[in-house]
Amino acid sequence: MAYNDLFLRAARLESTERTPVWMMRQAGRYMEEYRAIRAKHGFLEMCRTPELAVEVTLQPVDLVGVDAAILFSDILVSFPGMGLDLEFAKGEGPVINNPIRSKSDVENLRVADPIEHTGYVMEALKILRGELEHKVPLIGFAGAPFTLASYAIEGHGTRDYEHCKALMWTDPVAWDMLMTKFSDTVIAYLCAQIDAGAQVVQLFDSWVGYVAPRDYEKSILPYTKRVLAEIKAHGDKVVPEGVPVIHFANGAASMLDLVQQAGGDILGVDWRMDMKKVVEQIDPKFGIQGNIDPVALFAPDDELEAMVVEILEAVGTRPGHIFNLGHGIHKTSDPEKARAMIRFVHEHSDRIRAGA
Amino acid sequence: MAYNDLFLRAARLESTERTPVWMMRQAGRYMEEYRAIRAKHGFLEMCRTPELAVEVTLQPVDLVGVDAAILFSDILVSFPGMGLDLEFAKGEGPVINNPIRSKSDVENLRVADPIEHTGYVMEALKILRGELEHKVPLIGFAGAPFTLASYAIEGHGTRDYEHCKALMWTDPVAWDMLMTKFSDTVIAYLCAQIDAGAQVVQLFDSWVGYVAPRDYEKSILPYTKRVLAEIKAHGDKVVPEGVPVIHFANGAASMLDLVQQAGGDILGVDWRMDMKKVVEQIDPKFGIQGNIDPVALFAPDDELEAMVVEILEAVGTRPGHIFNLGHGIHKTSDPEKARAMIRFVHEHSDRIRAGA
Repeated sequence: MAYNDLFLRAARLESTERTPVWMMRQAGRYMEEYRAIRAKHGFLEMCRTPELAVEVTLQPVDLVGVDAAILFSDILVSFPGMGLDLEFAKGEGPVINNPIRSKSDVENLRVADPIEHTGYVMEALKILRGELEHKVPLIGFAGAPFTLASYAIEGHGTRDYEHCKALMWTDPVAWDMLMTKFSDTVIAYLCAQIDAGAQVVQLFDSWVGYVAPRDYEKSILPYTKRVLAEIKAHGDKVVPEGVPVIHFANGAASMLDLVQQAGGDILGVDWRMDMKKVVEQIDPKFGIQGNIDPVALFAPDDELEAMVVEILEAVGTRPGHIFNLGHGIHKTSDPEKARAMIRFVHEHSDRIRAGA
Repeated sequence: MAYNDLFLRAARLESTERTPVWMMRQAGRYMEEYRAIRAKHGFLEMCRTPELAVEVTLQPVDLVGVDAAILFSDILVSFPGMGLDLEFAKGEGPVINNPIRSKSDVENLRVADPIEHTGYVMEALKILRGELEHKVPLIGFAGAPFTLASYAIEGHGTRDYEHCKALMWTDPVAWDMLMTKFSDTVIAYLCAQIDAGAQVVQLFDSWVGYVAPRDYEKSILPYTKRVLAEIKAHGDKVVPEGVPVIHFANGAASMLDLVQQAGGDILGVDWRMDMKKVVEQIDPKFGIQGNIDPVALFAPDDELEAMVVEILEAVGTRPGHIFNLGHGIHKTSDPEKARAMIRFVHEHSDRIRAGA
């Protein structure tokens, strides 16, 4: 099997003969091969053990046929290094036992050292680059400052963000200190991932869709912008062609104008926006990643195929399209459907990009 | 106190001297007076006992000063009449013990009779009209067909909708039968509410924001459109000036073009869209309801006031604006903050609408 660099070329906005595809959360519970390992190991243990992280990272490449590998990890792995007591409670998702609630909590927060606190991530990336040498490119990732801050403040997943927004509105000085510490942590972490061999990096702002545009613009965008710029500058220094940066602002369809101001090379878009509008609204200088409904994998093949074609036709021959789900793959998805989707993307993009 | 018809005039798109305000879920747990009653009664018991429903409906009118009363009830109260075994499990929200999973489940579903199955709602509305005679107008409401269908299929609240979307894509005939039964139920239910004295009705499509625009257009919009048209026609027959219909499609910022095709008189907008864009995108024939972040009630007064002013200034003197939260009020909100918000809306809209 020859090295498949389709994803990397698309991420650099080069014209490609077909559209690359990968899936958010592609190394995950929908695969029985993943569940077999997960049955024997804790989630954080898997993140922290390079051999295990490498093994599950490779599974969807070998078994599902995606065009890129993304490191198996979690956006919150830097938390302990910052002084945040992170735990994955059974069936409950992440819990932070000492959430940030006051300015003094913010003052006590540390900027994590990527090597000292998350060296296992860099080790996994290095091994993966070797393992993937004849396969596909490798993606590194991190959570964006707001998404990380919101977990640190609320202490768990939420849809409300009362504590987080209250801090943002009530104490702008503490908010700035907090967002700066998260930004510094993320910058150092992604730079270290690039040094360790990540060929593309993605910044996940998973919960920014719960924020009003005014607050995004004033209290979040400046930090994201700085993170994206510094990562970009670092990539330019390390790799001659640069390291493409994907910015995924989930649920931000109503403020794509602001999201574009944040920078990055490729904008990830969730499934709630028609791709025709996405293409109209996003400046051609950006690539586009997305955006099929993750639940489309529960549709019959003909309907799934129709959805794939609609997205590909909306993009047409515009360079820099990376096909992806509009959010992470669901744990009850059938891997066979994921394979079918990938086949549809390849077949139809081949045709569409050839102008047929 | 003279009758305050500000809300009704705005809902009819008449020019008003200031902007009316009410809050979704305004009869709720954030008020200690509500909690005192709730401590003694089950949630569904409160919905089904007109005296209790009336009492909590009136609380925010008397104690918080909103410009409209909305019947205390739940969007799912029609379920038992349809053959769906509804329960409010402690701390878990609604659970349907016999969710719809197959075509034969859909065939067994009945169209609920609004009087036979939910006569307590009509009784509460009649009492409320009397109680509110010298106060404010009365709003009735129902869930939209998709939101109801998604609960009935999933069996509980979710953010994924695998079963629901799978049915929609796999069996269009069953989907049509299902959506038609929910539409018929909702039409009969809201017509009966109008007959019982509801002066404005709101249709809540609470979960439609989890659907891709293509699916909304094809599989949801036609039903919502029919419901809104029939309700409107019935209101025109019952009340000489008509009964204004509010359509709240939550999370639908990316498809306001489609939402407008559904009809109604006033479109409710959640807080994730800048009001300047809302005003640009919504045809002037519609009124606009919204759209401050519900969590804004956790902000300091000066920031809350700034948010109120931004929204009011974006709307300017356009007729038909009803100020509201972009979603239901949170249970830990301070009623004093709600009163402050209402004061800000009244004061500043007075000034802005006077052209000052």
